Amino acid sequence: MNIPIIRKVLERNDAAARENRELFDSSGIFCIDLLGGAGCGKTTLLEMLLPRLASSMRIAVLEGDLETTRDAERIAALGVPAIQLLTEGGCHLTATHVRRALDQVPLESTDLLMIENVGNPICPANFELGEHCRIAVLSATEGDDKPLKYPLLFRTAAAVVISKCDLLPHVRFDPGRARAEINRINPDARVFLTSNTPNSDLDELTHWISVKTRQAHGAPMLT
Amino acid sequence: MNIPIIRKVLERNDAAARENRELFDSSGIFCIDLLGGAGCGKTTLLEMLLPRLASSMRIAVLEGDLETTRDAERIAALGVPAIQLLTEGGCHLTATHVRRALDQVPLESTDLLMIENVGNPICPANFELGEHCRIAVLSATEGDDKPLKYPLLFRTAAAVVISKCDLLPHVRFDPGRARAEINRINPDARVFLTSNTPNSDLDELTHWISVKTRQAHGAPMLT
Repeated sequence: MNIPIIRKVLERNDAAARENRELFDSSGIFCIDLLGGAGCGKTTLLEMLLPRLASSMRIAVLEGDLETTRDAERIAALGVPAIQLLTEGGCHLTATHVRRALDQVPLESTDLLMIENVGNPICPANFELGEHCRIAVLSATEGDDKPLKYPLLFRTAAAVVISKCDLLPHVRFDPGRARAEINRINPDARVFLTSNTPNSDLDELTHWISVKTRQAHGAPMLT
Repeated sequence: MNIPIIRKVLERNDAAARENRELFDSSGIFCIDLLGGAGCGKTTLLEMLLPRLASSMRIAVLEGDLETTRDAERIAALGVPAIQLLTEGGCHLTATHVRRALDQVPLESTDLLMIENVGNPICPANFELGEHCRIAVLSATEGDDKPLKYPLLFRTAAAVVISKCDLLPHVRFDPGRARAEINRINPDARVFLTSNTPNSDLDELTHWISVKTRQAHGAPMLT
């Protein structure tokens, strides 16, 4: 594909992303784009986070997927409004996908909009959706060389979640090395280690999202 | 991106793929495209397979990656000729990428060409490279819902490898369910369960590849 066409596609997307961002800001919505490879645990992370966050804020979720509505069903089962965006084979969400779905989001009664992108560590990182920040997910079973392999994803993420850390005893994955590589690419990125066990940074991540959301709303920071 | 542009890109790719295929056939090369998500274990699978295959055939490997040459270095360490294809941020290999790299492949002394595609279960499945068959890799840590989520990948694969099966005791992944969903999408697909333990279908997979390669060369089938 030639460069002028790619540039035009990205410019059109960026214009739509700016419109989304203006709508989020005027509606008092903080928007997070959640990115990562297929099966890295994005939906499971949402299943763990949403019940913790839902006590202090009103949340809506956009679920990006190629073909199925399974992830949206998993989120809706938590009692959180979930809208499925099907890309019909497309490998990433665009700002236009998001804009179309916003008709179904109760904007006035939403504080935090979480967008779960398509499972792909590459293409989605090129497309701004209007989000205020990105969280990248990397599972401990994928290998600690992934930050170097997919630098755009990790360079543009405000936080990186290393998921499935309960499997660390069984895989060759050095969380220290992964953290160092992430922070070499992106010195400001916060890194959180999560798992399905109590020994996890889930509380810290919940707190981080809460603070970011409250800050965006002009409310005083949590202490 | 609009449909006519996508169609034109795919048509141009298919033409290049046909040329590659003709070159493979006239050179007596059997070509396999290895596809799967980031960190699903494609390079590790090659590290396990190549020493087993190398005793009976001459192999070359093309390694697709976005930015780094790590995977090609891992393969070259096995003594197998490995050529790195960098897509410079692109999310899939194209037939043109492959055609350019073939200058560096010793065509006359190669029986099997393995192409490891970019770590992405979505886009690479749309691009024929001239391969004779595809092997899809799905790791047990990704979740058994992935065949339904990425149907094109599993529909077009002659074989599916469920990797990292040594982790099955630690994850919610039902190999029977995965196998059933794969064969519902693609009734002809062979499914192999692999792991880094002796209890694995690695011998069966090695045999399957050997037979396919020998058949392509007109040699009698292994028994």
